[in-house]
Amino acid sequence: MTTTPSASFSVTMRLDLGDHRGVGRVTTALGDAGAAVIALDVVESRGDGLVVDCTFNATGEAHAEHLRKLVDGIEGVRVRAVSDRTLLLHLGGILAVAPKVPLKTRDDLSMAYTPGVARVCRAIAADKASARNLTIRRNTVAVVTDGSAVLGLGNIGPHAALPVMEGKAALFKRFADVDAWPVCLDTQDPDEIVRIVECLAPVYGGINLEDIAAPRCFEIERRLRQALDIPVFHDDQHGTAVVVLAALTNALRVVGKAMGDVRAVVLGVGAAGVAITRLLLAAGIGDVVAVDRPGILVPDMAGLDEDRAMVARATNREGRRGGLDEAMDGADVFIGVSGPDLVSEAQLRRLGPDAIVFALANPDPEVDPVLARRHAAIVATGRSDEPNQINNVLVFPGVFRGLLNAGAREITEDMELAAGRALAAVVAEEELSPAYIVPTVFNPAVVPAVAGAVEAAARR
Amino acid sequence: MTTTPSASFSVTMRLDLGDHRGVGRVTTALGDAGAAVIALDVVESRGDGLVVDCTFNATGEAHAEHLRKLVDGIEGVRVRAVSDRTLLLHLGGILAVAPKVPLKTRDDLSMAYTPGVARVCRAIAADKASARNLTIRRNTVAVVTDGSAVLGLGNIGPHAALPVMEGKAALFKRFADVDAWPVCLDTQDPDEIVRIVECLAPVYGGINLEDIAAPRCFEIERRLRQALDIPVFHDDQHGTAVVVLAALTNALRVVGKAMGDVRAVVLGVGAAGVAITRLLLAAGIGDVVAVDRPGILVPDMAGLDEDRAMVARATNREGRRGGLDEAMDGADVFIGVSGPDLVSEAQLRRLGPDAIVFALANPDPEVDPVLARRHAAIVATGRSDEPNQINNVLVFPGVFRGLLNAGAREITEDMELAAGRALAAVVAEEELSPAYIVPTVFNPAVVPAVAGAVEAAARR
Repeated sequence: MTTTPSASFSVTMRLDLGDHRGVGRVTTALGDAGAAVIALDVVESRGDGLVVDCTFNATGEAHAEHLRKLVDGIEGVRVRAVSDRTLLLHLGGILAVAPKVPLKTRDDLSMAYTPGVARVCRAIAADKASARNLTIRRNTVAVVTDGSAVLGLGNIGPHAALPVMEGKAALFKRFADVDAWPVCLDTQDPDEIVRIVECLAPVYGGINLEDIAAPRCFEIERRLRQALDIPVFHDDQHGTAVVVLAALTNALRVVGKAMGDVRAVVLGVGAAGVAITRLLLAAGIGDVVAVDRPGILVPDMAGLDEDRAMVARATNREGRRGGLDEAMDGADVFIGVSGPDLVSEAQLRRLGPDAIVFALANPDPEVDPVLARRHAAIVATGRSDEPNQINNVLVFPGVFRGLLNAGAREITEDMELAAGRALAAVVAEEELSPAYIVPTVFNPAVVPAVAGAVEAAARR
Repeated sequence: MTTTPSASFSVTMRLDLGDHRGVGRVTTALGDAGAAVIALDVVESRGDGLVVDCTFNATGEAHAEHLRKLVDGIEGVRVRAVSDRTLLLHLGGILAVAPKVPLKTRDDLSMAYTPGVARVCRAIAADKASARNLTIRRNTVAVVTDGSAVLGLGNIGPHAALPVMEGKAALFKRFADVDAWPVCLDTQDPDEIVRIVECLAPVYGGINLEDIAAPRCFEIERRLRQALDIPVFHDDQHGTAVVVLAALTNALRVVGKAMGDVRAVVLGVGAAGVAITRLLLAAGIGDVVAVDRPGILVPDMAGLDEDRAMVARATNREGRRGGLDEAMDGADVFIGVSGPDLVSEAQLRRLGPDAIVFALANPDPEVDPVLARRHAAIVATGRSDEPNQINNVLVFPGVFRGLLNAGAREITEDMELAAGRALAAVVAEEELSPAYIVPTVFNPAVVPAVAGAVEAAARR
């Protein structure tokens, strides 16, 4: 798979060098071995040698370890310490709580806290709805996980999930000025999770469910949506569905096909697959064929849970049976939300003309994008080092910004469709190309477009 | 009671004035009626008059309303709008979440979030204890309430309690650089509260329970202390007890009595009263006589819950019976944590020579401090407009700073004693006087002293 050195595997080695010629030996060896050297800082220079901090990007953990051994083996070079820049960045966590008011004088204290705050409390006790204006609730979102399906790492639990939720909260702030707070629950019981989130709700204007395993995530979301008067959004489902809708909308423009005429194969019917299928159907797609481990989903398949059964009933108009091969035959679109390397070149060949391939498994897609581009007109992945990165960061900040701005009590399919279309429209007609179907996450037009569309739909 | 205008009742009135002489009429009327005029801003000046924003402090809500009517009745003056500066300050809440890392470039994202963050997750999954270093847990405290006993307002619920928890979190940050987050629970069931806090714990390095009614608060704290590997501290109990210990330590120095020789009356055996009694006994006080609504607590009293029964057994060595009168006879110290105006001048006369009176009911003390000073050598209250303000803000920031610094798994009585003694020692021997037994909250020596004492005790 891809072997580009990345900042996410950035390492600093502290090296003892016998003499100054060691520097050249090290950088040459690193470069030859595929590392990208970023910086070289001399920490100490003595008569008998140098101490140098050498920072470089590797392609992955194994590569970084390989490079350490390589450097340590160079004559006259000793690796004194290795530090991982990503781990260093996360030392002490990456979030802080910041008071928004001055607390310098006694007067400040008496208004922010007692005794003045009592009047704010009484105002809310008299009119609960005023909590939206008089507290942080108006701009605050809980990022809730049980640690059961974290990134591609699986069920690693709530403690190990916290760095992801911190990162998510940081992105919420960075991209949409939403105050998001991590809620990592030390339980995986749906009843408990539902009850806990209900009880936590007074502080929050929205709930972002995150990295909760399917099918539990469906039930939890459904029950919370019924119970709460604030929007509940499982990002792995709906965030992914919205960005896929946006990307597909633009990809179809590029290849000149209409949404109502195309058939898409969705591989992987977990949280994302179910939501993508639902939203594409709501957007009027011609047909979807959903494929999971046992093959094409059909209504008479044994062991389908409630949501997969819904997918089986609503898809596959032609009644195809079989596996991925049969699903791919003549399809216009392939959308993978499954695992690495599950699609072969032979299977890609089965796709119809001007095919669209979204291979979204992270970090390693269902098929090498280089290979996919031989057989498809448009290829997108979840990777930042490929064109057309399909990334939830394009969606969740704007969606919650819009929901909070509108004071929305729920999120609807209409809002999701509006968000997807608004995101697609950020790429102007004349900008569209096979290598540019979605804007980048740093495009400043993204959040206002998505937020505006969601807010307008919420106010309707 | 006290009638000093305060910033916590600060009001801005927008006034239409027929001519410029109206300004003088308004400020004179406000001053005569006991308001403190802070600012006068001309918003508009036309041929036929002025529009003026007049900001003043009142002594309370009723006073502010009285002043509005007064001003509106002045000839040639019309009150166009009244706004409450404290409510304005709380608009949108007073906390924000702030990322501590830059998120400007793609490299930043790939380290703070995916894909780099996966390595941080794996490090914690491999060694759960590393969450302390690699996440916000190390510096983060939950401020947990069920809204059942908020300030003096009673059971106003979790929504109306949020402004207090926000204020508390703001003080945590301001005074001790602790990141505290409000957790306002929409349940008042002790089993649910205990279970929820257990499940929330992965994100936090400490739990500050707040404004939870007695006797429920005792059970909740006890069970959480057993269940969790992080310190649990009910501030209404222990914060109050520590600051009372500090104040009493210094007050006894001023009057030249030894802790082991004095008898204290504690009026009000709720959360604070129980904890104060416990800590003073642990500090070696001669005796305590605890008085609640039914009178002096004695072991054979009917209807005592577990904690009041403990107090009844451990106090009142002389076996006094009766009410506050009998308790006060010859006592050295009176500590009120009850309600306004519950102590008469006649009762104060019963105290022994060089008496110490802490009348801590908020916002209105058990007895007017002016009156109390006629009969006691030292008087302290919870008010900021009197000398000797006994305020938990002197304690909780430093206590948690010390606990977090030490990575403490629990808080012990030893740590509380150490905190109280360290806080007392902030006032130097030569500074001590009847009007200066505790430092002010803005004294920069307070938090380091308390934190250092707690950290040292925790490491022992």
